[in-house]
Amino acid sequence: MPQNTTLVDLPAVLNLQGELLLPAHAKVPVFDRSYLYGDSLYEVIRSYDGRFLPSQMKAHMDRLWQSARLCRMKIDQTPEELIGACEQTLDFFKRQPFATKDVYCRIILSRGVGKIGFGLSALLTPTQYTILVQPVDTPSEEAHERGLHLRVVERYRNHPKALDPAMKSGNYLNNLLSYLEGTAKGDDDALICDHEGFVTEGTTFNIFYVKRGIVCTPPLPVGILDGITRRVVIAQARGLGLEVRESFFPKERLHEADEVFATSTLKEVMAVTRVDGKKIGKGGAGPVTRRLREAFGGAIRRELS
Amino acid sequence: MPQNTTLVDLPAVLNLQGELLLPAHAKVPVFDRSYLYGDSLYEVIRSYDGRFLPSQMKAHMDRLWQSARLCRMKIDQTPEELIGACEQTLDFFKRQPFATKDVYCRIILSRGVGKIGFGLSALLTPTQYTILVQPVDTPSEEAHERGLHLRVVERYRNHPKALDPAMKSGNYLNNLLSYLEGTAKGDDDALICDHEGFVTEGTTFNIFYVKRGIVCTPPLPVGILDGITRRVVIAQARGLGLEVRESFFPKERLHEADEVFATSTLKEVMAVTRVDGKKIGKGGAGPVTRRLREAFGGAIRRELS
Repeated sequence: MPQNTTLVDLPAVLNLQGELLLPAHAKVPVFDRSYLYGDSLYEVIRSYDGRFLPSQMKAHMDRLWQSARLCRMKIDQTPEELIGACEQTLDFFKRQPFATKDVYCRIILSRGVGKIGFGLSALLTPTQYTILVQPVDTPSEEAHERGLHLRVVERYRNHPKALDPAMKSGNYLNNLLSYLEGTAKGDDDALICDHEGFVTEGTTFNIFYVKRGIVCTPPLPVGILDGITRRVVIAQARGLGLEVRESFFPKERLHEADEVFATSTLKEVMAVTRVDGKKIGKGGAGPVTRRLREAFGGAIRRELS
Repeated sequence: MPQNTTLVDLPAVLNLQGELLLPAHAKVPVFDRSYLYGDSLYEVIRSYDGRFLPSQMKAHMDRLWQSARLCRMKIDQTPEELIGACEQTLDFFKRQPFATKDVYCRIILSRGVGKIGFGLSALLTPTQYTILVQPVDTPSEEAHERGLHLRVVERYRNHPKALDPAMKSGNYLNNLLSYLEGTAKGDDDALICDHEGFVTEGTTFNIFYVKRGIVCTPPLPVGILDGITRRVVIAQARGLGLEVRESFFPKERLHEADEVFATSTLKEVMAVTRVDGKKIGKGGAGPVTRRLREAFGGAIRRELS
């Protein structure tokens, strides 16, 4: 099949339920519920200095179990088992010719392999994990200086009572279609509002703005991911003496902000310098964004040493 | 892996991009977008008298292309190619020891195999099809007489501007979680309302009610699948001289109806005899439901002969 000839070039390794594989050989049954229904959960973690930080790994595992509660999924693995599998996959990656020091690690947890049908009696196996490790692709210093150009899309974010964005699931079309809409005019990514016009989050990141020194971000009930980086940044901002408000706001608040920034595991704290084509503040990474980015990096360095 | 020992027992055959396989050997790359993101479309068709009806096959192909437009997916196969693959898979099924006369056929079309990431440049292959053929599991005559017991769930249907239910995609958690909620108290399946409380559809079927001889069903703009059986039934009801209204209504309208019925490819026209534990009409399949079920079956028989 054609995909095998292209997958051989991907510098990645996989771990399927304990079996370590290269991309061309990493295959799952058609009857996997993630393939059939997007019936899976996932987490993304990155390494620093060649290893996973225990505090981050714990936070990601906690969130995976939180997603499982929202998805009514009983995880048949233990957190320790999944963490061990991530470490094992990282070791396997380090032995490859394409190894890089730092990695992107995606943990996919499917509800299992099962017959067609919704009932849990259709399941033939326990929950099945796939771990993917590949070189981490983080923004360069130049990219951080330039900042992201975002577009608020017409598409609404999933309603939390329809499909809660707090659940990090394999149902990713809402994000993906928002991305295609947001980037259609040349912007880097999309920002998504709810059906009442309140800003929620980006396709893979949380959003903040700064106005007169006050840091604002949408609250969890608007229907967003409870971002791990978001949580850390809110705590660090308060630690630095900044006022942080979690409040509902329309997109115009971003247009008029002094600074806007995005947070995620891969972006950490990244300036947003255009929203809907409008320049934010002076157009570069602003002082509060820089301070929070430095604080975030400092905490990582302290945990590493 | 454990799934192989369970999948060998499944009486099904698969066609992966032209390769005919039994379930235990039917595997897709981890990098398939349907596995990663639920980034796929699907259709379900059944055979009658051992063959697919051309009128139905055409309607399902038309809808697959309609879903593709909503999903911004360019399908790299032609309808003729997919229809040919369905026929080929049906022939392969008929040669198996577990063959049955009539089959369930699921066509899954993934956006392709691709690297992690949303951009279409991440794709490594054209759209990839999987066809699954297995014995069709349709309600018995007794099941039709007893009728479905449905529960209106608290979960909202996906908003059409978030993820349009008219798009039959691999993002199925909204339906699946509704099913788990709806069946938790012993009912057979779930009915889902939108965020304003208007009835939309079931997890895998459209819904109708009859009051004083008038047939009512939610209109497409409420955010539902443009069901092929729904369309045929509306036309046949009008052909029988019945008044059909497509209108927004709350769940109470169902509780007070003379008859309620569900339509889908597999259920055809099926009585709903309880909603939220309340008996509908006299509790069995009502006269209008029977008439429409007979009209639907009659049209099938005419096409077959």
